[in-house]
Amino acid sequence: MRYLTLHSIEEVKSIINEHLKKLKNEVEEVDLFSAVGRVLAEDIFSNIDVPPYDRAKMDGYAVKAEDTYEADEDNPVELKVIGSLKAGEIKNLEINNGECVEIATGAIIPKGANAVVMVEYTERDNDRVKIYKAVPPMENIQFTGSDIMAGELVLRKNTKLTPRDIGVLSAIGRSKVKVYKKLKFGIISTGNEIISPEKPLEFGKIYDINSYTLASYIKNLNYDFEFFGIAKDDKEDLKEKIKKALKCDIILLSGGTSAGVGDLTETAIKELGGEILVHGIKIKPGKPTIIGKIDNKLIVGLPGYPTSCLTIFDVFFGDEKNVIKAEFPQRHISAKGRTEYLPVILVKHKNGFSAYPITKGSGAITSLAEADGYVIIDENKEILENETVEVHLFGDVKVGLNIIGSHCIGVDIILKEAKLLAKTINVGSLGGLLAIKRGEADIAGIHLLDEKTNIYNIPFLERYKIRDAVLVRGYIREQGFMFRKELGFNTIEEIVKNIYNLEFINRNKGSGTRILFDKFLKEHKINPKEIKGYNIEAKTHSAVATAIAMKKADIGLGIKTVAEQYGLEFIPLANEHYDFLIRKDRFNDEDVKKFIDALKKAKLPFKKPDNCGKIIWEG
Amino acid sequence: MRYLTLHSIEEVKSIINEHLKKLKNEVEEVDLFSAVGRVLAEDIFSNIDVPPYDRAKMDGYAVKAEDTYEADEDNPVELKVIGSLKAGEIKNLEINNGECVEIATGAIIPKGANAVVMVEYTERDNDRVKIYKAVPPMENIQFTGSDIMAGELVLRKNTKLTPRDIGVLSAIGRSKVKVYKKLKFGIISTGNEIISPEKPLEFGKIYDINSYTLASYIKNLNYDFEFFGIAKDDKEDLKEKIKKALKCDIILLSGGTSAGVGDLTETAIKELGGEILVHGIKIKPGKPTIIGKIDNKLIVGLPGYPTSCLTIFDVFFGDEKNVIKAEFPQRHISAKGRTEYLPVILVKHKNGFSAYPITKGSGAITSLAEADGYVIIDENKEILENETVEVHLFGDVKVGLNIIGSHCIGVDIILKEAKLLAKTINVGSLGGLLAIKRGEADIAGIHLLDEKTNIYNIPFLERYKIRDAVLVRGYIREQGFMFRKELGFNTIEEIVKNIYNLEFINRNKGSGTRILFDKFLKEHKINPKEIKGYNIEAKTHSAVATAIAMKKADIGLGIKTVAEQYGLEFIPLANEHYDFLIRKDRFNDEDVKKFIDALKKAKLPFKKPDNCGKIIWEG
Repeated sequence: MRYLTLHSIEEVKSIINEHLKKLKNEVEEVDLFSAVGRVLAEDIFSNIDVPPYDRAKMDGYAVKAEDTYEADEDNPVELKVIGSLKAGEIKNLEINNGECVEIATGAIIPKGANAVVMVEYTERDNDRVKIYKAVPPMENIQFTGSDIMAGELVLRKNTKLTPRDIGVLSAIGRSKVKVYKKLKFGIISTGNEIISPEKPLEFGKIYDINSYTLASYIKNLNYDFEFFGIAKDDKEDLKEKIKKALKCDIILLSGGTSAGVGDLTETAIKELGGEILVHGIKIKPGKPTIIGKIDNKLIVGLPGYPTSCLTIFDVFFGDEKNVIKAEFPQRHISAKGRTEYLPVILVKHKNGFSAYPITKGSGAITSLAEADGYVIIDENKEILENETVEVHLFGDVKVGLNIIGSHCIGVDIILKEAKLLAKTINVGSLGGLLAIKRGEADIAGIHLLDEKTNIYNIPFLERYKIRDAVLVRGYIREQGFMFRKELGFNTIEEIVKNIYNLEFINRNKGSGTRILFDKFLKEHKINPKEIKGYNIEAKTHSAVATAIAMKKADIGLGIKTVAEQYGLEFIPLANEHYDFLIRKDRFNDEDVKKFIDALKKAKLPFKKPDNCGKIIWEG
Repeated sequence: MRYLTLHSIEEVKSIINEHLKKLKNEVEEVDLFSAVGRVLAEDIFSNIDVPPYDRAKMDGYAVKAEDTYEADEDNPVELKVIGSLKAGEIKNLEINNGECVEIATGAIIPKGANAVVMVEYTERDNDRVKIYKAVPPMENIQFTGSDIMAGELVLRKNTKLTPRDIGVLSAIGRSKVKVYKKLKFGIISTGNEIISPEKPLEFGKIYDINSYTLASYIKNLNYDFEFFGIAKDDKEDLKEKIKKALKCDIILLSGGTSAGVGDLTETAIKELGGEILVHGIKIKPGKPTIIGKIDNKLIVGLPGYPTSCLTIFDVFFGDEKNVIKAEFPQRHISAKGRTEYLPVILVKHKNGFSAYPITKGSGAITSLAEADGYVIIDENKEILENETVEVHLFGDVKVGLNIIGSHCIGVDIILKEAKLLAKTINVGSLGGLLAIKRGEADIAGIHLLDEKTNIYNIPFLERYKIRDAVLVRGYIREQGFMFRKELGFNTIEEIVKNIYNLEFINRNKGSGTRILFDKFLKEHKINPKEIKGYNIEAKTHSAVATAIAMKKADIGLGIKTVAEQYGLEFIPLANEHYDFLIRKDRFNDEDVKKFIDALKKAKLPFKKPDNCGKIIWEG
């Protein structure tokens, strides 16, 4: 596939908007119970007066005002009660001087009456009532049409209906209204390797992500969607699914990642009598996007990678985003000649926000899931470095604590206890330490053993020149080897003896557990290169335990608590300090205080030293 | 009905929240396509690695990295292509030194290969390919589990699922997830006078408003509702409907305005075996609210007036509102001993907002529809006057122009031409002039004839001491008498001759048209008191025309354009200047500029003088 001409984002937007403009003029009639949030396609005039009759605003007595003029608290006027009227009641009552009618709120004002005395100012005695207050004419009466009058324009075309507008429509007796049709998107997944999450995974397949993120996104935008299934990389299958989806307004294709998919989409559109409007956009990610047209329906071939796919959809069909300013404290080299949408994580400071790029690449779904929003980098800008950027937020981002570092179920328990909103990212102890240094994290859980001194954590803080942070003592975890029962080991020595026969699963570089494993190997003079699986890196303790339980590996290092959760055998190797490194500029933050409080109070499956929750180092 | 003890808002909130807490722990399983926006009721761990196999990140050739080390732009290395792999394809291929496999993005890396060379750096010739770039091991390969590893905690319980979270769930093959159940509200309308908007209006009835506003509000909150119809003021009918609605979590009753309704609701709840928790709240509006409990279901008897009903629902079940600060430039006497929720209109200034109370009362649906939000006035505060208040906004209030004054279809046409978001409130010319004076309006359309000078508008501005505003010349409207054909009048004189036999419909006090009518009566020495219908006030020209067309009146004064729209006869009385009074502090605002531009350009069904759009007076 070759991109003959890359279109600019503006060109593509205008092609799409031209198409949407036509669609957005289509009208349907909806029931009032389903009309909220829809856009009116007609001016609404009232055919009736609201209220449609003069009615009592209060419970009391309908009177001739002039009969009450003499009344006051000490000298009540006595009137004859000639009847009563409830709301909704129709009676042929008419009052003369000296008479009144008992009346309920909302009831029709009887003939002859021109005011209502509130019940609070009356005293009833059989068919007589004493009136203790003078009322002027019109008092406590809501007159015909005083709220809305017949003929009045009550709602203008193009109004997006709120619940209060719905109230106005029901008040004038409109049970149906004309609104503009909702856009309907047809969704087709493509690719031989794509499988539905409803099915068990087969080797060589990956689960369909894009259909689900697109559908959810479309739903949030208050549009409709229909899913037409997964098409093979086969022209006829694709054509058949597109044909079915042509009943929708816009068809989205996505899933396949290969360059060949683009050609297939292009051919399918052409063979169905359509034309190609765009093939290639000056945007990153999402360059290979295709836009075609069949019978006035748009076909959008989105890129396969989840991040690229959702970014492109968002740029062309999404809502306007809320934007906040943030410092960009790192260096990022951008794609020249293409506008880049760079996903970022936000970190809150005392004086604002910092934005950190997520650099896992658009192939990873987690790179999108962890992002708070994106920064748009102009196609002429090559380097982004130490400057203020605008972050376009995904939804209502509520920035809580950023906890980046070693994974521990203790952190989950503490967060629950503290009832805190937090984003936890598991990158290992060293990753957490660096995230604190870069300002990316508020708190990092770390457990790093210094080989020389046998002291946990503090030597690493000195070595990595950590400033403006404190180390808070956490808890003590028991680390050791986890394995399945049938291996039958009872001592560390037995493991050492069999070490070259075992399939290991290791932890990621920079994790405290991996450092512990390396120390163990060194002490026993074992060459890491001879260890099977030494290069297989799991990011969490539970990932290690799962791999062992699923027999993908025999043995690995991890904490006792997790080994027990997964029903694995456990031989202890070391007790380690799992502590919390916290940025000083965030230390007095409410959320951080709550976190430390909860650390002290929470019941944890670990031993807490006496100085748990205390500062043990300051840099 | 007597309120023995009024509950505080806090007490009621804690009663309701106690109940909601229990409900919110109920769990259901939903399909991934419907999961967005729902709240996770489980921690989500991945059972699989993502990606589940090592796969190519790029289209190109899978190689042994060491084979490429010698390659550069001038000295390519030549490898033998032993096969090809597409995404989703499973082949038993293994490469040896000197060999490679053509590979598509997403395809499984074949055995023996440890890197991918991008197709851009290769040149193919039958089963041979030249490699122009050296690649290190692991280049362009996305490794098993590098995105998400089996066993990893990917989403935490209590997460509100975003489209990006849905992507994570589909990536790990979760097609269903456990989420907390949505609250379901049962809605029952009550009151003999209430009728469904689906039916034609009967005398003495008013349309059901509250069921529709509540349902729409509930929908916007992402809860469910079911409507159980309108109950008569009859205990058995009410009990029967409540019994049916008990399948919902919370039952809302509303509609009836009478005090007796409270007793009925109370009795019905008790006879169904329930108990009353609250009867009367220290709140305005909404004091007569009742809360009861039957079998652990809450029954909430909301007040009948639309504004009261929705306010109470919002206070106890609504979302947290966005709050903005605004100046409160008027004086408002609040209800002592009750917290008042006062609906206000917002007006944007150069330096912020002003909030103006809407004082139509809670009986009017328009008082809620026109409001941008409300101000909460503490129960101990008696007077609100010239101070800064917090306005709790209804939804995403986008404050556009406030156009308050005389109604004219010309304004509608101008707004359409200018594509402006604006709130238009029809209160007549004098009302508009006063709204400008109070700062409530940005623009007021006025047409006020001074009897002495026969000059339009300017004398009134002087008389009402308008400052800090300008008058912009608008257009000329033909005013005259509108009537049905069968009346057969041809001249003003014929109308004068028959004037005491005619049923008139008048306009509201302060409207330019009413002033014109009064001048006409004076000139012809006619006593207004002898005119039938003189006191019946319509707020718009179209309301006058409708009343005549519907034979509710014979004749009225209005503009020619509207008479024509309604097929009425028209005899001209005067040409009048319809001009725009604009606040000076808003005159340079973008929206105001657009309005004046559109006034000049728009095709209007009126005559435009040469100085249309020009300032003709400054105060």
